[in-house]
Amino acid sequence: MAMERTNSSSTSGISQARGNRVAVIGASGYGGLQTLKLLAAHPQLEATFLGGERSAGKRWSELCPFLPLPDDPVVETPSADKIAERADFAVLSLPNGLASQLVPQLLEREVRVVDLSADYRYRSLDQWSQVYVQEAQSLARNDAELCQQAVYGLPEWHAPAIASAKLVAAPGCFPTASLLPLLPFLKQGLIENDGLIIDAKTGTSGGGRAAKEHLLLAEASESIAPYGVVGHRHTSEIEQLASEVAGHSIQLQFTPHLVPMVRGLLSTVYARLRDPGLTAEDCNTVLKAVYRHHPCIGVLPVGTYPATKWVKHTNKALLSVQVDNRTSRLVLMSAVDNLVKGQAGQGVQCLNLMAGLPPETGLSLLPFYP
Amino acid sequence: MAMERTNSSSTSGISQARGNRVAVIGASGYGGLQTLKLLAAHPQLEATFLGGERSAGKRWSELCPFLPLPDDPVVETPSADKIAERADFAVLSLPNGLASQLVPQLLEREVRVVDLSADYRYRSLDQWSQVYVQEAQSLARNDAELCQQAVYGLPEWHAPAIASAKLVAAPGCFPTASLLPLLPFLKQGLIENDGLIIDAKTGTSGGGRAAKEHLLLAEASESIAPYGVVGHRHTSEIEQLASEVAGHSIQLQFTPHLVPMVRGLLSTVYARLRDPGLTAEDCNTVLKAVYRHHPCIGVLPVGTYPATKWVKHTNKALLSVQVDNRTSRLVLMSAVDNLVKGQAGQGVQCLNLMAGLPPETGLSLLPFYP
Amino acid sequence: MAMERTNSSSTSGISQARGNRVAVIGASGYGGLQTLKLLAAHPQLEATFLGGERSAGKRWSELCPFLPLPDDPVVETPSADKIAERADFAVLSLPNGLASQLVPQLLEREVRVVDLSADYRYRSLDQWSQVYVQEAQSLARNDAELCQQAVYGLPEWHAPAIASAKLVAAPGCFPTASLLPLLPFLKQGLIENDGLIIDAKTGTSGGGRAAKEHLLLAEASESIAPYGVVGHRHTSEIEQLASEVAGHSIQLQFTPHLVPMVRGLLSTVYARLRDPGLTAEDCNTVLKAVYRHHPCIGVLPVGTYPATKWVKHTNKALLSVQVDNRTSRLVLMSAVDNLVKGQAGQGVQCLNLMAGLPPETGLSLLPFYP
Amino acid sequence: MAMERTNSSSTSGISQARGNRVAVIGASGYGGLQTLKLLAAHPQLEATFLGGERSAGKRWSELCPFLPLPDDPVVETPSADKIAERADFAVLSLPNGLASQLVPQLLEREVRVVDLSADYRYRSLDQWSQVYVQEAQSLARNDAELCQQAVYGLPEWHAPAIASAKLVAAPGCFPTASLLPLLPFLKQGLIENDGLIIDAKTGTSGGGRAAKEHLLLAEASESIAPYGVVGHRHTSEIEQLASEVAGHSIQLQFTPHLVPMVRGLLSTVYARLRDPGLTAEDCNTVLKAVYRHHPCIGVLPVGTYPATKWVKHTNKALLSVQVDNRTSRLVLMSAVDNLVKGQAGQGVQCLNLMAGLPPETGLSLLPFYP
Repeated sequence: MAMERTNSSSTSGISQARGNRVAVIGASGYGGLQTLKLLAAHPQLEATFLGGERSAGKRWSELCPFLPLPDDPVVETPSADKIAERADFAVLSLPNGLASQLVPQLLEREVRVVDLSADYRYRSLDQWSQVYVQEAQSLARNDAELCQQAVYGLPEWHAPAIASAKLVAAPGCFPTASLLPLLPFLKQGLIENDGLIIDAKTGTSGGGRAAKEHLLLAEASESIAPYGVVGHRHTSEIEQLASEVAGHSIQLQFTPHLVPMVRGLLSTVYARLRDPGLTAEDCNTVLKAVYRHHPCIGVLPVGTYPATKWVKHTNKALLSVQVDNRTSRLVLMSAVDNLVKGQAGQGVQCLNLMAGLPPETGLSLLPFYP
Repeated sequence: MAMERTNSSSTSGISQARGNRVAVIGASGYGGLQTLKLLAAHPQLEATFLGGERSAGKRWSELCPFLPLPDDPVVETPSADKIAERADFAVLSLPNGLASQLVPQLLEREVRVVDLSADYRYRSLDQWSQVYVQEAQSLARNDAELCQQAVYGLPEWHAPAIASAKLVAAPGCFPTASLLPLLPFLKQGLIENDGLIIDAKTGTSGGGRAAKEHLLLAEASESIAPYGVVGHRHTSEIEQLASEVAGHSIQLQFTPHLVPMVRGLLSTVYARLRDPGLTAEDCNTVLKAVYRHHPCIGVLPVGTYPATKWVKHTNKALLSVQVDNRTSRLVLMSAVDNLVKGQAGQGVQCLNLMAGLPPETGLSLLPFYP
Repeated sequence: MAMERTNSSSTSGISQARGNRVAVIGASGYGGLQTLKLLAAHPQLEATFLGGERSAGKRWSELCPFLPLPDDPVVETPSADKIAERADFAVLSLPNGLASQLVPQLLEREVRVVDLSADYRYRSLDQWSQVYVQEAQSLARNDAELCQQAVYGLPEWHAPAIASAKLVAAPGCFPTASLLPLLPFLKQGLIENDGLIIDAKTGTSGGGRAAKEHLLLAEASESIAPYGVVGHRHTSEIEQLASEVAGHSIQLQFTPHLVPMVRGLLSTVYARLRDPGLTAEDCNTVLKAVYRHHPCIGVLPVGTYPATKWVKHTNKALLSVQVDNRTSRLVLMSAVDNLVKGQAGQGVQCLNLMAGLPPETGLSLLPFYP
Repeated sequence: MAMERTNSSSTSGISQARGNRVAVIGASGYGGLQTLKLLAAHPQLEATFLGGERSAGKRWSELCPFLPLPDDPVVETPSADKIAERADFAVLSLPNGLASQLVPQLLEREVRVVDLSADYRYRSLDQWSQVYVQEAQSLARNDAELCQQAVYGLPEWHAPAIASAKLVAAPGCFPTASLLPLLPFLKQGLIENDGLIIDAKTGTSGGGRAAKEHLLLAEASESIAPYGVVGHRHTSEIEQLASEVAGHSIQLQFTPHLVPMVRGLLSTVYARLRDPGLTAEDCNTVLKAVYRHHPCIGVLPVGTYPATKWVKHTNKALLSVQVDNRTSRLVLMSAVDNLVKGQAGQGVQCLNLMAGLPPETGLSLLPFYP
């Protein structure tokens, strides 16, 4: 990783126009760390700028002695000018609200952006302001147009738009895991639109690296608990995309739970089949057909249920489906690594598309096990 | 703990007739271990016989150097005659099917039984045989009458029957956690009877102490996964009691998940309110009213959700309720320690009632934390 | 628990002079929580005052909905006058340095104190100031005399002094676990004085409840690491008592490690036998003889090694010994629950002695398992 | 992965003579699984035969739905003839004793072998028979000559011999982690030869995938315990290499501990410096100098101590050193992933050398974090 402008001739595999240099902003949080690790192993893309506020001025090795990067770069204050000079793309992994302060300047300077926060996940700035009330109050966002232009970065559903996008809003971890199995059934009208229930479970790394009491090992270990019951922010994000794909407004129940593990996210989705005669095999066929050309999605055989360990450190979502013919109920299950397919890996998947590369480039699809 | 007949004058608090001597059969499994630990600290009841097949003939200290018992008893083959001679009650913690081979003999000898297995949880032997197919095939049970007489040992709902019962079938851990918050709403007709969904999460100790690959730390740690999706045995057990209380047949969805923790069980239950105007506070009031005289049940304030850590090692169920007025959905949450209120503690709670003691006698209701 | 002055006639088992009312200062940290839980189940002592700075003015149920206390007391600012009015004893569970600001006032008012911090663990204030440099710099302690008078609260070694003490400094968790197996061999001159090595392992709750990044589940789980290698503060505390008991100055190696579990502390101690002919059985006999009348110490048979799970939530230390005759090396192993026998339980054990009760009163010695 | 003979022209980077086809025997245990995962991502080597006894005849996807391999191979009974036909190398991951039944036949057929078991780690068959008594009794090994010829596969110390070896005995996980920091000091005569103490800590995956009660999550989680105290088999393996490098016989203390985590192994090594004036910086320089050209070894700055999480899923050993000048004691710390650098990764590192590739080819050196 050269922190000075790299000679593009050294990366002849990528078209000059598109570039391969990536700035990572918010480098020492979990999203940033994952992105850097993924880029370090990436055959085409290269991290060329490390940005951070609190860690600005420090050598990387001081911050992360366990993740040595070539030439031990210094973390810098994220100025749009410097980023534009040294990078073609920027991945922003910042607390909600902060990306919106930097993105307009980056786009003006023709840096293409993948934002891992929620700032551009809603088509409407108004809706964002309603969901992220606190953040909205302390900022004065007037980038409603950008919100409309941003592409929701779910590559299996929006690949062409992502490929040409200037601004991609990478989905949240819960929406990613929940929407992937659900969207095919909504789109094909196989399930009823109301009564959807998403019971989701996440490891604690989803809460980020900043120290919080309830995420201490002593508190979170040996315990499972629901949180944000009714009204969790990701509800509206899931509903937005579900409604778009279904073609009418969807309201659903979403309950997240905190699980005593570092990584991993499992979504268990309950829906009612329109046709009570559909079998689990039928529904399995639906998923397989929709995702057969998508390397980052795996569909398990009927009767095999996904463990989050099976996708740890990979950019894969593992899906499974079961049907209860007594109750006409469809049960969808979906496991992802919340920090990879649920965050940074999906960000790199978007970068790949934006850079004209196959979506899985540089992303592991096989887990270390156990 | 005297392994010989104790002089009942030393326990003057208990009526002679009812006795206080307890045989624990299946002593070295998790159910047996919990029962012994609870009895060791019990002010009135006393373990006077330790039964086990594989461990028969061994001193207790060889089996469990970490749980010293007074006089270091020898584990014995569980013969009905010996048990009847030395105990007033028997707690059976055996693999499904085996209790039914011992219970009739014990009852003949006037030993009152709390069975922790599923053998007597169904009113109908036929239903048991359908649900526990494999066990039924290898046995020739003809104790249908006993199945009808057995009392389902959920003390908050069946206290009087338990108090006078000869045979109590202690509920499974999932049914206990799921039914406690659900039954009041079914009984009062506040929720619709169909569309019930129970998404439950359990620690791995629920799988017992016998070594199984999927319960190894290396396999189960850092992972969450569903299992037994559609058709798990506890579905029918939950439906049986839910139907009885509701007054008509209930079919519901039950999905268990394996959580990387030793103990703890959380049930998240979704139902639809009949009256869309009911608030979370209203529903909280319902729970509080039903359980106000039940020391082993706690109802959390609206907005506080139960963590399984809050009930670890206690015989308490912590309940919470939330309502989504957009969708008229009721979300019930319930946390128990799967081996205490979900198994051995509930067994002792039943014993207490059978012995004429307050239900919580000798049972801790405050957790060690963290 | 009555927050107003209790009528001592209600606790006729305790002599009037000694009292049974306990103030717990620092109530919502882990040390305070444990102390309150232990007192809630204690047959003789009673928490009558809850003190805390940050939580002053709040109802207990707001702070700890999971640990309901009778009458839901309000946490109060810890003023010496109020404490003296309402309590006979005070247990202080405060960050290092803070106890020294309150203890002199409490002693003046005849409140007997058990301090769980390091403030009075050193006979010499100077040494404390050298070891706790930062704390010493921000305070102006001039209570050197109190440091000399304070009794080091290791009940198995200092019971008579504790019983009559006004101020007890409860030992650290590492010193407790390490000294218990080591002291008998030092006292009897069975091992060489130099070359002692203590390799210790602790759960993360030892780091307290305040949020710190390295104690997050995401950071600390699935990892083990040494910390404070060479020069950890507990080195000097261990050396002080080891030297006193050995009768000459001891310098030893102490290395703590952070283990991915909530509770538990294991000390593995290496020493060289003076008499190479001593066997593991001989050494086991030494330990058994020294501790035969101490209910809070268990000595395992040779070849059985202690797991911290075997003492979880108990006030027991489990010791084991092994000998390598090739190298004349003695290996001592010792497991405690760092928050019980390593902290709050030992504090209550001291309180018991101070109140004229058997040391194990109200303290569980049997673990819940698993 | 082609299960039929691959056309070597497709892998032009490897010399024809040396080959790139690898048989993995014992494919579904943890050692085999890691090897397959590593080979699946390897740019040059290829798994071309999957051998297993219990799983013979099954499709890979039945055994491991979570680790899809190209063409979904069938696991086969490991016959030497079939292996020789389809592979240039064989990695054996079998229970101790079994490799010795297959290796001679493989070598006769010019298959070069990396054995992950202990069968060929001792130069002397007699010593193996003394250490692995039970295995030796049930077998009739007469391959003493092979034991002498086998190369101990610690690549940082034996690279040239490994490169030309026919049979490599990959070291155990504990010896790997313990020897890497220790050998430089022994070789340079900087420490005393007696009094060495190795206190080691391992995750539970080191115990293998076969179900054992003490490795259940319910048993092993939330606990740390020593095992095999004095006389653990790895003691002799460590002593053998330590003695060879030091140039005279070394006897040391080795104590393993079981840590509640899936992976990771930390060795804390205590030695006495010959020159009491040496500082931690001096000793750090020693390590850095010895390992400066070894990409799979990292030496941390003085004062930074290795966490096993920092090397998880990598083939890296992270070393650190500290000195206590009061006691002239050297403390060495070393972290590895027990299944990668401690087992399968080191096996692939050996394969790389045998195939004429850089040692780190295809092996990740950067961790996913957290």
